[in-house]
Amino acid sequence: MNAVNDLQATLDASRKSWIESANEPASDFPIQNLPFGIFSDRGNDTRRVGVAIGDQIVDLAALREAGLLNAPAQNVFARDALNDFIALGRDAWRGVRIQLSQLLARDTATLRDAAALRAKVLVRAADARLHLPVQIPGYTDFYSSKEHATNVGAMFRDPKNALLPNWSEMPIGYNGRASSVVVSGTPVRRPNGQLKLPDQERPVFGACRKLDIELETGFIIGGGNALGEPIACEDAEAHIFGMVLLNDWSARDIQQWEYVPLGPFNAKTFATTISPWVVTLDALEPFRVAQPVQEPEPLAYLRHQGKHAFDIHLEVSLRAPHARQASTIARTNFKYMYWTMAQQLAHHTVAGCNTRVGDLMGSGTISGPTEDSYGSLLELTWNGKKPLELQEGGTRTFIEDGDELTLVGWCQGDGYRVGFGACAGEILPARE
Amino acid sequence: MNAVNDLQATLDASRKSWIESANEPASDFPIQNLPFGIFSDRGNDTRRVGVAIGDQIVDLAALREAGLLNAPAQNVFARDALNDFIALGRDAWRGVRIQLSQLLARDTATLRDAAALRAKVLVRAADARLHLPVQIPGYTDFYSSKEHATNVGAMFRDPKNALLPNWSEMPIGYNGRASSVVVSGTPVRRPNGQLKLPDQERPVFGACRKLDIELETGFIIGGGNALGEPIACEDAEAHIFGMVLLNDWSARDIQQWEYVPLGPFNAKTFATTISPWVVTLDALEPFRVAQPVQEPEPLAYLRHQGKHAFDIHLEVSLRAPHARQASTIARTNFKYMYWTMAQQLAHHTVAGCNTRVGDLMGSGTISGPTEDSYGSLLELTWNGKKPLELQEGGTRTFIEDGDELTLVGWCQGDGYRVGFGACAGEILPARE
Repeated sequence: MNAVNDLQATLDASRKSWIESANEPASDFPIQNLPFGIFSDRGNDTRRVGVAIGDQIVDLAALREAGLLNAPAQNVFARDALNDFIALGRDAWRGVRIQLSQLLARDTATLRDAAALRAKVLVRAADARLHLPVQIPGYTDFYSSKEHATNVGAMFRDPKNALLPNWSEMPIGYNGRASSVVVSGTPVRRPNGQLKLPDQERPVFGACRKLDIELETGFIIGGGNALGEPIACEDAEAHIFGMVLLNDWSARDIQQWEYVPLGPFNAKTFATTISPWVVTLDALEPFRVAQPVQEPEPLAYLRHQGKHAFDIHLEVSLRAPHARQASTIARTNFKYMYWTMAQQLAHHTVAGCNTRVGDLMGSGTISGPTEDSYGSLLELTWNGKKPLELQEGGTRTFIEDGDELTLVGWCQGDGYRVGFGACAGEILPARE
Repeated sequence: MNAVNDLQATLDASRKSWIESANEPASDFPIQNLPFGIFSDRGNDTRRVGVAIGDQIVDLAALREAGLLNAPAQNVFARDALNDFIALGRDAWRGVRIQLSQLLARDTATLRDAAALRAKVLVRAADARLHLPVQIPGYTDFYSSKEHATNVGAMFRDPKNALLPNWSEMPIGYNGRASSVVVSGTPVRRPNGQLKLPDQERPVFGACRKLDIELETGFIIGGGNALGEPIACEDAEAHIFGMVLLNDWSARDIQQWEYVPLGPFNAKTFATTISPWVVTLDALEPFRVAQPVQEPEPLAYLRHQGKHAFDIHLEVSLRAPHARQASTIARTNFKYMYWTMAQQLAHHTVAGCNTRVGDLMGSGTISGPTEDSYGSLLELTWNGKKPLELQEGGTRTFIEDGDELTLVGWCQGDGYRVGFGACAGEILPARE
């Protein structure tokens, strides 16, 4: 046995857990996943590091205290954010992953047969509250779906030249606002702002009328780089800790009026929601697939060998106020992304910009090739021209007050899923 | 005596210090200033809070330990950033300001006549190293000089419609990159990136050929706001701790190719330099002047009564490699800014965005009305068409390797100056 084999074994599709709920084919959190997050619960309102497994959360702070987790002297699990754990580096993440996979495997009796110990280190997910998993020093959002950029360009610029010339040469990105990144479940207040109505010369102040989602994923920096020292594209994935789902809430009317020439600002700084569980790049390894063919061939600093996309099925649902069920309004896949996460990170740092542990990098809206695979209402309803029919009746062009929007995503394995859980938010009415 | 009178007394133009260097008319740091920063020195390499006075630094951690500063139980001065001190709130900043003004006044013997004590709490600025004064959770840059926006619009869009329609309605801003904000004196490496040359169909990768400065000021948030709870324009100044000089280094060629449609990214994330001393808004109070007339009248959420500009003289100098002297290349004034800091902060938060203690907000390039008062080489040389003559011979269109660029700024009082010190950086050659 060695570390590489142990790591490989954590991905073994036939491995089952003694926590039976983890073995359900539709569970987001089988023993092959083991995502990291921050939780508290009714019995203990201190925030600490947990790992999701089936319908349970393993309390890593308690596990370490019980002597069941070899980990560094300092208890990086008794923290309100993953940053200190992440900062230990990839070998440390992998070491914890390997130990947990072994400890939770069906054949391992240590915890399985020790009821008192189990009671100390396992918390029912239903009894827990999940918090923002990382303290985010910087948030960057990219714009890397060719289908999305083409749709937006066709709507607002020229359908014949929908893609701008720079788009095919680099992963276009911009700095987002880290302070307003919130965890799934946090209500989102409809923003007020300047709206430029077509029939009026001057803008008016009021509540956003075109509130939208952007279906994205985000990756979390696991190892930063120093100012002036770029990360090479071939090395970039080693700097990534894991991925989350991300909803880049967008006020389309505010955005359209404010964004020239310096980009979106108030249209996107009122809230960005991420899912609470960070799925490690290690857990996603079996779902690696080839990225789309890139034509023209990128400049040398954006080239990498091999496969760098991931087959992650993604869905958006909308639950209207008082509706019993949510309507699925879009189905797409992360693998459609034109620019890879590695290319995004290489580009982000090529001029010398430093990144830090916990930085969040959004993919940009993930739209697929078909009309029901678009990652925003802007595209799904073609800027409100084609309302969506909801399952229980009613239609939507943009989001209404009381609507709950939920993103979900998973990789489909053989008899199991590596899932992300939900990334949800309900819209509150604007401030008077 | 009461707190208001005590605070007023700190601004008394006739007050002198027993530290004689502070009484020189050209000193940036008279007893009326008392700016806060973070320093270490040869004898003690621990970073801690200091206040500049003449050619000395008062070590607040040592002053408190010596029992000469009433301050909260927790020693917020023995820190590597001002954030914990700032977080105590405006009454605390003012209390420290009042105590220091009294302690350093010519007539106060406590420290003046106690040589051993003085040796403990005073450090010669020449022996100290200055560090980034705050840990910056978020950095936003505005674009609030009408002259600058007009010049840029005239150069790159249409001289007849240089100002975009949204510019006169709101303080346009964008999210900057907080990780690469560095303190004055930090060398800045020329960035590499994608350059779109006029004679080539595809971009090339290489070193920036149009490296530029942007002469700005920045303000530091002293009291943040919760997500979803905007700061009213009339209340905004109470949320500001103080101001610094800011050089928003810009790679014009990278910027021109990348910035559509989401704004500047790699062109500005390689470094942003700020001055080490934060001049409090209280120290700037005597230099308050009326802002320019705003036409059209701003929407209600951007209105405030009274004067909200500050008369701060600003200069840029360039020292070529091996030159004995720097050439002053621009002289302008903060009072030309169209949008005030209060309006910037009200706009930033109006859609619900939260701000945090230590957030940095850049003014945008400060250009005046005349050709020698422009705040960037882009404008001073009109995109390289009109080279600048340097004092010791030679010319410049954009910055060359080895050039040192320095911003300075001060408010001119009656016989004294409230100054910012220098905001300087030397350019290193690009990475191979």
